Amino acid sequence: MSSAPGYFVSFEGGDGAGKSTQARLLGAWLEEITGREVVLTREPGGTALGREIRRLVQHGEHVDPRAEALLYAADRAHHVATLVRPALERGAVVITDRYLDSSVAYQAGGRELAEADVEGLSLWGTGGLLPDVTVLLDVDPAVAASRRTGDPDRLERAGDEFHRRTRDAFLRRAAAAPGRWLVLDGSGAVDDVQSQIRVDLASRLGLTPGLVAGEGAS
Amino acid sequence: MSSAPGYFVSFEGGDGAGKSTQARLLGAWLEEITGREVVLTREPGGTALGREIRRLVQHGEHVDPRAEALLYAADRAHHVATLVRPALERGAVVITDRYLDSSVAYQAGGRELAEADVEGLSLWGTGGLLPDVTVLLDVDPAVAASRRTGDPDRLERAGDEFHRRTRDAFLRRAAAAPGRWLVLDGSGAVDDVQSQIRVDLASRLGLTPGLVAGEGAS
Repeated sequence: MSSAPGYFVSFEGGDGAGKSTQARLLGAWLEEITGREVVLTREPGGTALGREIRRLVQHGEHVDPRAEALLYAADRAHHVATLVRPALERGAVVITDRYLDSSVAYQAGGRELAEADVEGLSLWGTGGLLPDVTVLLDVDPAVAASRRTGDPDRLERAGDEFHRRTRDAFLRRAAAAPGRWLVLDGSGAVDDVQSQIRVDLASRLGLTPGLVAGEGAS
Repeated sequence: MSSAPGYFVSFEGGDGAGKSTQARLLGAWLEEITGREVVLTREPGGTALGREIRRLVQHGEHVDPRAEALLYAADRAHHVATLVRPALERGAVVITDRYLDSSVAYQAGGRELAEADVEGLSLWGTGGLLPDVTVLLDVDPAVAASRRTGDPDRLERAGDEFHRRTRDAFLRRAAAAPGRWLVLDGSGAVDDVQSQIRVDLASRLGLTPGLVAGEGAS
């Protein structure tokens, strides 16, 4: 957990699970109801360096799996050092679309690397920074595929078996650390999912019930 | 050590120590005297991906030190997986201008990271591949600076104290594993230094004295 005065939220799940929509809605609500600074960000590519790294990994030549894991860890280390940690230190709520658990689920769960190794790279790179809460939007891979728009990238083309293993890895990690995770069915209506996230966050942040009940979910 | 039929040589030392010149001369001589395939390469930037990574690290925005160590390890992992290991497996002599010891000396020796951590990243990334022999061209940093040409990059501008710590780190590593290292005074004449390298390599590779004696050093 972060020792800074801020609060750190990550969204996890497969592509098409609705992470960026739910993160944006949650951020707007938290900003309004708490008056705190909210920083919305993402991985990979939350910094200028990270966007270059993402371009190298996702749309370049074939990258060796260990090199790929090291590149994602480098993106994360730089993201935390230059954006996430400074924001937490000035008391902001930081909401990131993907974090460390994505690396473990995709590079280890979906491929041949050891989970502990991939997690260890990111923990080393970030000085051990874990989110205060991680929201998993769990969606059956077949449903997620039907929600996607635009040209598929390399990960998206990697096939159903890969997506199934990745989903299993997320669920396994959530089961192993239930205090950090909020697991929701991401195939529900956007407003219903958002309401469940707000109820959970209100409880974690100690927000008063009256304030929460007075806000709509969209 | 590599278990492949090839032979793996790295050159280490500060910028301006003559590594690329000595590597090229050694490669041409080994090719002629042994008839073996010789692959000359370098780090960072021995692959297309690696050249992009090198550009990000050396000439881009300020990079967090842990992100930098992870990026160099990624370059190395990809270099070994796609170029070095395939060459060793087909029996080639691979000569690289810088390898793992440069990362340890520059990222840990010259900066604030732990040596074992930086070395661990590269060993994980490369599946534990170490050179059969590492030639350290040891030069006083003040002499090396006077040999440089072109615009200095970020590392070159980092100052004398940094270069002194880096040199000390190379010498410490060589002293700790003398079987792998050949430490030479890189400030000598090019032909003299090359002759010493050839005598050592001839012994390590079991080349016949007659062949070695019959070759000039330039």
